[in-house]
Amino acid sequence: MPRQPALLIVLDRTSRTPLQTQLALNLKSLVRSGVLHPGKALPSTRELARDLQISRNTVIQAYDRLIGEGYLEASVRRGIFVAEVLSERHSWRVTTSSQCNASLPQESSQQLVEPVPFRPCQPDVRLFPLPQWNRLRVRTLKRYGDKLLHYQSHSPLGFPGLRRNVAVYLRESRGVQCDWRQIAITAGSQQALYLLAQLLLKPGSRVLMEDPGYLGARHAWKQVGARLVPAPIDVEGVRLPSRRQIVADLVYTTPSRQFPIGACLSLSRRLALVDFAAKTKTWIVEDDYDSEFRYSRPPLPSLQSLDPAGRVIYVGSMSKVLFPSLRIGYVVLPVQLVEKFTALRSALDEHGPLIDQATLAEFIEEGALSTHIRRCRKEYARRLDSLVESAASTGLPLSFPHTDGGMNLTGFLEQGISDTKCANQLQERGLDVRSLTQYSLRPTRPGLVFGFTAFEPRTIRQSIEKTALALEALRFPGKRAP
Amino acid sequence: MPRQPALLIVLDRTSRTPLQTQLALNLKSLVRSGVLHPGKALPSTRELARDLQISRNTVIQAYDRLIGEGYLEASVRRGIFVAEVLSERHSWRVTTSSQCNASLPQESSQQLVEPVPFRPCQPDVRLFPLPQWNRLRVRTLKRYGDKLLHYQSHSPLGFPGLRRNVAVYLRESRGVQCDWRQIAITAGSQQALYLLAQLLLKPGSRVLMEDPGYLGARHAWKQVGARLVPAPIDVEGVRLPSRRQIVADLVYTTPSRQFPIGACLSLSRRLALVDFAAKTKTWIVEDDYDSEFRYSRPPLPSLQSLDPAGRVIYVGSMSKVLFPSLRIGYVVLPVQLVEKFTALRSALDEHGPLIDQATLAEFIEEGALSTHIRRCRKEYARRLDSLVESAASTGLPLSFPHTDGGMNLTGFLEQGISDTKCANQLQERGLDVRSLTQYSLRPTRPGLVFGFTAFEPRTIRQSIEKTALALEALRFPGKRAP
Repeated sequence: MPRQPALLIVLDRTSRTPLQTQLALNLKSLVRSGVLHPGKALPSTRELARDLQISRNTVIQAYDRLIGEGYLEASVRRGIFVAEVLSERHSWRVTTSSQCNASLPQESSQQLVEPVPFRPCQPDVRLFPLPQWNRLRVRTLKRYGDKLLHYQSHSPLGFPGLRRNVAVYLRESRGVQCDWRQIAITAGSQQALYLLAQLLLKPGSRVLMEDPGYLGARHAWKQVGARLVPAPIDVEGVRLPSRRQIVADLVYTTPSRQFPIGACLSLSRRLALVDFAAKTKTWIVEDDYDSEFRYSRPPLPSLQSLDPAGRVIYVGSMSKVLFPSLRIGYVVLPVQLVEKFTALRSALDEHGPLIDQATLAEFIEEGALSTHIRRCRKEYARRLDSLVESAASTGLPLSFPHTDGGMNLTGFLEQGISDTKCANQLQERGLDVRSLTQYSLRPTRPGLVFGFTAFEPRTIRQSIEKTALALEALRFPGKRAP
Repeated sequence: MPRQPALLIVLDRTSRTPLQTQLALNLKSLVRSGVLHPGKALPSTRELARDLQISRNTVIQAYDRLIGEGYLEASVRRGIFVAEVLSERHSWRVTTSSQCNASLPQESSQQLVEPVPFRPCQPDVRLFPLPQWNRLRVRTLKRYGDKLLHYQSHSPLGFPGLRRNVAVYLRESRGVQCDWRQIAITAGSQQALYLLAQLLLKPGSRVLMEDPGYLGARHAWKQVGARLVPAPIDVEGVRLPSRRQIVADLVYTTPSRQFPIGACLSLSRRLALVDFAAKTKTWIVEDDYDSEFRYSRPPLPSLQSLDPAGRVIYVGSMSKVLFPSLRIGYVVLPVQLVEKFTALRSALDEHGPLIDQATLAEFIEEGALSTHIRRCRKEYARRLDSLVESAASTGLPLSFPHTDGGMNLTGFLEQGISDTKCANQLQERGLDVRSLTQYSLRPTRPGLVFGFTAFEPRTIRQSIEKTALALEALRFPGKRAP
């Protein structure tokens, strides 16, 4: 039997990996690379032990392992040899990692990023009472014990205690009429939109979509191959086409405060919308993404509360109220959708993480949610004031149609100015301002969206000054800004 | 102007809700119920204040609010009246809650359930080092600060530090070859299966599915309308049809330990499978759901590690290793799927909850994961022994083809016995034993599946005795068990 060249096997005696394992791995890669081809005899355990200067027992163990794994076979007459069943395979070589890397998308090595001004829809997580949350989490774990760690496959819609508390919260704060069993806890409101798309739409379905409108919703509808029908926005919110012209399977709207323009859907349009939905059996998705943040007058009643026919699906988010990486949202399902939604959620991921859900139930029950919302509302109102004042005092070339609430303030630019150019210019200067064009399906009146809730008044003022200079430089390119 | 009958308005002076709000709500419901129809004049503020014995200011504030909300309109000539825009709506009455409840699925009022013997695939969560996890969670929150609370929309595949550590863990424990950017953290392995179905299948696609096989996978394929092609199981694992007969877009397999039979896919079949996948460009989903729990010999190399062509998609779960309600799983994506999967995950829910992901990264880095797995492996081995011994000593009428690992032990019944009947009988006695029929697409050899990992040896012994009595009663119905 020709001797195996021992030098092909590299053992590292300083490694914590046992020699036996190292030897087995070495042999495997020799088999894979074809050096040890099927049918080939291996050196005897005695020989190999001597060559490698290791104990014979180590070799025996490695051989045994590879026999167990089917790489090697033992025969009384022939000794140990590479299994014949491996004979048909040729291309064992694995893709080299350089080939791999070439086609992998470039990902930032940065683990975590923080929002920079004026990224839209970002709460100030520094206002969140994390120590209180952590205390409630400990209390919750004590209260439910190990039970909270198990699968709860019978509850794909979420922790019953949380669903009950969300039902009460929505009834009190938004007039939402529902049984707690109509509440589904989702991984952010985005998951609610995605699952509704899967449930209610098919390729070619038409979705009447506010234009400009929320990109997350657009992505959800696009995933099922739906066709988007843009509906324009005016001062009263989304302008519906006349009844005869609307042919839609679903209408998506943000009535409390249209995203990103900020208009509040007027009561008459709300009533027209629920009436239309009832008569034509169209689904309405009401995304109430930031209704917690009203600074002057109370919000109008939710569409859901005006809808006698059960066509409105109410979607909301806790991520924007508490902290985004919690990933908790909810949807109030019309009764006839509950069963199908449950089956779909179950097939998707069984249910959401329960410790956070149970903690949130406790957080609501304690009144901590209301306290936190009040605190944020007060603070965000100050920030809105700073933004509006800074915009006025720096003479920002924007007109703000709705300055009364929410997490973002949108300003229109003069016609003819490219909002995309402005936004790019600002991005280059480290400001995360979005253009209305980015949110639009059709050419839009140019405008810029300023999220203000995550940033302190001082930062807002400084950033608005930077913004003003950058926009100035764009309008009068001769006069270069510093 | 005819006087409004004041008795229709009910104010509760003991309530904490301000009288003004109560009045506004009362008026709204009168408008909705049609008592105050569109165009109808309201009593003057002075009259209403007198009738209700409240201050006129309260009435003015309530009217103002309803004008703001669009319910009422004010005119110099006519005073306050119900808005005309409401005139086209007729059916404002909301569905009564009794109608609602009638069609809602019955849900248990029980918040949380615990597994009873012998529910399959349940870890013993009492072994989980929750205090250590909680300490690491606090440390993680300190380390990353508020950053961990923000959206990380640039990382839909999960916390980069966790993806890196999972890549190392899989390389060391299962020989999985990948770049960390191929790792996607999912909401349990179920979400990985669901997303793969969405990405790779369409209605009518064929999925070669182990039969009997894992129901969660079946649900995922069914959601996209795929057709299931059953592949039988023998001692070497799933038996593939001859190459010419296989027409499949995807093959689903649990090679380490076939679920629920327990067979380990032989090396020659593994090689045949990856070879077939490479040649026909078929996707293979390798679900390595419990490979951490080997009690005697080390597991065979993962299919993924044998696959040079990048057709194997490796799916695994942390829920079964740590605790199920954590909902963390992972998938190792072939390079060419990374981008599409990222876009889909982003549309689904942006990304998973980050505090848990960052804590798990720390848990792995500390070596706590390996320690926990070793501890479970030792304990579960004892439980498997108890189960096998009790089955033998009570003369359970079952033969166990694979008693070497995993979280479940499956026994075959004699041909002709209905496993469904047996399982029902056991369920009635409070034992959660599943029949092989439940997992099967085609008529199967009858058998029962016993999950043993969540239950202590004593419980296992007692439950096996109960099982033996119940099965005895079924075989000899004359001799009634106690």
